[in-house]
Amino acid sequence: MRRGCLSSLLKGSNLSYLRDALCGHAYVTNAAYSSIGHKLSSTGSITGRVFADYSVYKGKASLSLSPVLPTFTRMEYGLRVDRQGKMMLRFCPAVGDRKYDWEKKQLFALSATELGSIISLGPKDSCEFFHDPSMKSSNAGQVRKSLTISPTQDGNGYFVSLSVVNNLLRTNERLTVPLTTAEFAVIKTACSFALPHIIGWDQCTSHQSTTNGEKSWKAGSLDSDSEWNR
Amino acid sequence: MRRGCLSSLLKGSNLSYLRDALCGHAYVTNAAYSSIGHKLSSTGSITGRVFADYSVYKGKASLSLSPVLPTFTRMEYGLRVDRQGKMMLRFCPAVGDRKYDWEKKQLFALSATELGSIISLGPKDSCEFFHDPSMKSSNAGQVRKSLTISPTQDGNGYFVSLSVVNNLLRTNERLTVPLTTAEFAVIKTACSFALPHIIGWDQCTSHQSTTNGEKSWKAGSLDSDSEWNR
Amino acid sequence: MRRGCLSSLLKGSNLSYLRDALCGHAYVTNAAYSSIGHKLSSTGSITGRVFADYSVYKGKASLSLSPVLPTFTRMEYGLRVDRQGKMMLRFCPAVGDRKYDWEKKQLFALSATELGSIISLGPKDSCEFFHDPSMKSSNAGQVRKSLTISPTQDGNGYFVSLSVVNNLLRTNERLTVPLTTAEFAVIKTACSFALPHIIGWDQCTSHQSTTNGEKSWKAGSLDSDSEWNR
Amino acid sequence: MRRGCLSSLLKGSNLSYLRDALCGHAYVTNAAYSSIGHKLSSTGSITGRVFADYSVYKGKASLSLSPVLPTFTRMEYGLRVDRQGKMMLRFCPAVGDRKYDWEKKQLFALSATELGSIISLGPKDSCEFFHDPSMKSSNAGQVRKSLTISPTQDGNGYFVSLSVVNNLLRTNERLTVPLTTAEFAVIKTACSFALPHIIGWDQCTSHQSTTNGEKSWKAGSLDSDSEWNR
Repeated sequence: MRRGCLSSLLKGSNLSYLRDALCGHAYVTNAAYSSIGHKLSSTGSITGRVFADYSVYKGKASLSLSPVLPTFTRMEYGLRVDRQGKMMLRFCPAVGDRKYDWEKKQLFALSATELGSIISLGPKDSCEFFHDPSMKSSNAGQVRKSLTISPTQDGNGYFVSLSVVNNLLRTNERLTVPLTTAEFAVIKTACSFALPHIIGWDQCTSHQSTTNGEKSWKAGSLDSDSEWNR
Repeated sequence: MRRGCLSSLLKGSNLSYLRDALCGHAYVTNAAYSSIGHKLSSTGSITGRVFADYSVYKGKASLSLSPVLPTFTRMEYGLRVDRQGKMMLRFCPAVGDRKYDWEKKQLFALSATELGSIISLGPKDSCEFFHDPSMKSSNAGQVRKSLTISPTQDGNGYFVSLSVVNNLLRTNERLTVPLTTAEFAVIKTACSFALPHIIGWDQCTSHQSTTNGEKSWKAGSLDSDSEWNR
Repeated sequence: MRRGCLSSLLKGSNLSYLRDALCGHAYVTNAAYSSIGHKLSSTGSITGRVFADYSVYKGKASLSLSPVLPTFTRMEYGLRVDRQGKMMLRFCPAVGDRKYDWEKKQLFALSATELGSIISLGPKDSCEFFHDPSMKSSNAGQVRKSLTISPTQDGNGYFVSLSVVNNLLRTNERLTVPLTTAEFAVIKTACSFALPHIIGWDQCTSHQSTTNGEKSWKAGSLDSDSEWNR
Repeated sequence: MRRGCLSSLLKGSNLSYLRDALCGHAYVTNAAYSSIGHKLSSTGSITGRVFADYSVYKGKASLSLSPVLPTFTRMEYGLRVDRQGKMMLRFCPAVGDRKYDWEKKQLFALSATELGSIISLGPKDSCEFFHDPSMKSSNAGQVRKSLTISPTQDGNGYFVSLSVVNNLLRTNERLTVPLTTAEFAVIKTACSFALPHIIGWDQCTSHQSTTNGEKSWKAGSLDSDSEWNR
C-alpha cells in the first residue's frame, strides 16, 4: 500500500507536481529563498513545496488528503488572512492493479466548516457538499461537483463518493472510495490537527513569549482588546 | 461565505483594526522589530498583528472568534503570566445582504474555564455567562453583558446569543447567531487547540531540549521540584 | 478569579518562585544564556523560568497545575530521557477571602500513566494515587501522600482531595478542591496537550524536515529501524 | 517503574542504541551538524538521536512505543515523502524482577492506518495485524509477525500480544503485555498527537506565515491549487 502510494506519487510529471503544490511551503519565491534561505535552512523551512498526503488505494480509485494553508497579506499593521485555508481531496481513478491515473485526478477542496461536519460525523451519519469551481466566473454552473460521505451497510466504514458533471467537456464522472473505520479515524484525527492551521490560529499562537513580553510592558495600550470598547 | 468574511474584514478602518488586534503577534514594538527583526523574519514571527478569525455569517449577525494570548512579565527569575489569555467573541449586526456593521460590534471575552464549559457542552446542554466589562471601575454595573448558548429545537445546532445592557448609552442590544453542528464542531476543535495557548502551557513546553540538556547536567538543583519540599 | 490567581502568584517570595520553577525553561544556566542567548531571544526561548499554571480558587484551598518536562542527558549518540516529565499539582490552603498560603502548599506530581487515568476518567468514575516522596531514601515511609478524585453527588463535577500524613513533622493534612465540569474539561484538554510533551515525544517530532532530508539520502542506513532486526 | 525504564534503557549497548534510533533527529550527519549546527543548537535540534519512549513494564515483558517520522527526498520542486512514518512498538522479555532483555527485543511497526484502528478501538473491540518484515525479499514468508490487541475479561484494559514465527531461526515466540485503561489512554492520546507527524502534515503546516506572505503577493499563480484544474 505504502509503496503503491509512493509509486503513484512518482508517476506524476513535474508539471503535475507544480499544479498540485498544495502545502504551506509552496511558492517560496527565489527572492525569499536567497535572502533568508540560510536561516530558514537551519529550521527546515526552505523546503519549498512539501508533498505529504494521507492516501488510501482501493479497487476503483485512490483518495489523497492534504492541507492547504491560508494565505496572508502583509499590511502596515500586520498580517491579514486574504485566502482561506482548506483540506484538498484528490481522487484518482484506477487504471490497473494498484495503478492510478494522476492525470485524470479530480479535486475537491473542503472549507473549515465542511471539515467540521466530517470531524463530527457519527457512525451512521452521512453528509453531502456541492461545489461550483467556477462560481462567479463566466463558466459558472458549467461544472457541478458533489462529495457524498455515507456509512456502509455493516456500519464498519464509509463510502466517499465524488461526482463531477462537466458541461464544457461533456463529461460525467463518479469516483467512489470505501473507507474502513481505521482509515476514517486517521482522517478525523489528522483533520482535527489541521483545522486550526487551516483557519490560521497557529499564527495567532506562535512565538508569543517575546511579543507578550513586549505587551506586558505597555499594558496601557491593551485596553483596546478588553471587552470595554465603546 | 468565505468571500463575505474577507470583504467584511476589509470594511473595517485601520483604526478599528488597531482596536481589534487580538492575536499574539500584536504589539511587537518597532524597537523589538528592528533589534531582533532579522532573526524573526527567518521564522516568520515579525508579522506584527495577525488577523485570523473563525467567522460565521448569518442573517441577523456575524460571529467571529479569535484567541488572545496571555501576557508575560519578565522578572529576573523568568517569565510570569500577568494577564490571562482568553477567547474573544465578536458579534457584528447585519446591515444588508451579507453586510455586517463592524463599528457596531460587541465583544465578549471567554476565560479558560468558560471555554471549558463550551468544549464540554453536550448536544442538549446550554450555558450562560455574565460579564461586567467595567468591573472594579467607577462604571461598575453600568454595562451588563450575558452570553447564552442553547441547543436548537431540532437538536442540530445551537443559538449563540449576546445581550448587552448599557446604562451609560441607554442601549439594550441582543445579537443572536445560529450555529450548525458542523460550525460548532469547528469551534470545539479550534478552541481545544487554543486552550493550552490561552493558559500559557505552550510556553512551558517549547524549546525544551536545550534547556533540559542543561537541567540534566545539574540534577542536584532539581530536587526543588520533587514532591519533597518541606 | 483571574485577578485572584495573579495576586496569589504575586504573594510568593522570589525564593518560593525559585523552589517552584516547574516549567521547561527552568534552569537555563547563565552560561547557556550568554552563549546562545541572542539566537534564543529571537525565538523567545531565553525566557528562563516560565510560570503558567491553570489554577482554581475555592473556599478552602486552591489547586494549580503546570507541566514539568522530562530532562535529557546528552550522549555522544544523542539525547536520552533521564528524568521523566510529570504534571505538578499544587494545593494551597485558604487563609482568608481569596487569600491562599503559598508557604503551606502541598505538591503532588502525576506521572504520564497517572495522567492517563485522569484523562480517561468518566463522569461517575473515581481514582486514587499513593505517593511516598522519599521512597528509596532513609526517610522512606515517613511521608504518605494520597490524591483522590471522586465525582460529586449531583454528577456535575469532582472533588480533588490531597491527604498528606507526615510522621517527621507529626502533621496530618487534607486539602480538598471541588471542580466544576468546565474546570475539569480544561484540565482534561490541557493535560491531553501536555502528555506528549511529558513523555518527550515532541522532541521526536520536531525539526524533522532537515534531518529527514539527510536521512533520505542515506536510506541504506535506515534498515536498522525496519522490523527486520535479527 | 520510571527508574526501571531508565535502567533498561541504560542496559542497551551503544550498538543497540544505534540500531534503535527511532526518532526524527536520527541520522543528522556530521556534515549537517557542522554546517548548520550553530543555528540548530539555538533551537535544540542538533540533538542527534532522541530516545523518548512511552514504556510499560509488566511481569513477563515490557512494551515501549516511539514514533518514527517519515523521510523526505529533496527534489528541485521541494520535499516529497519517500518513506512513510510509523509507530514502532518494542517488546522485551522479562529476565528477572523488573529486568528486561534488550537483546531479545521484538519490533512491530504500525502504519498510520493501523494506528487509526488503535486510536478508534472501543472498550470491547479487538484488532489484529499481520506483518512480514522481509516482504518482497528472498526471505519473504520466512518470518511471520502478528500483533493482537484484545480486551481483558473485566473490561478494564487490554492484552497486547506479539507473536513471531521465524522459520530461519526455527523460533516461535509470543510476548504479551497487559495494559490498564490508564496506560491505554496514554497510548491513544500520544498516538493521536504523533499521527499527523507520522503522515508528515506537520511539515505542511509549519513556518507558513512568511511563505504565505509571499504567496499572497502572487495570487495569480495560486489558481493552480483551486478545484478548477482541467
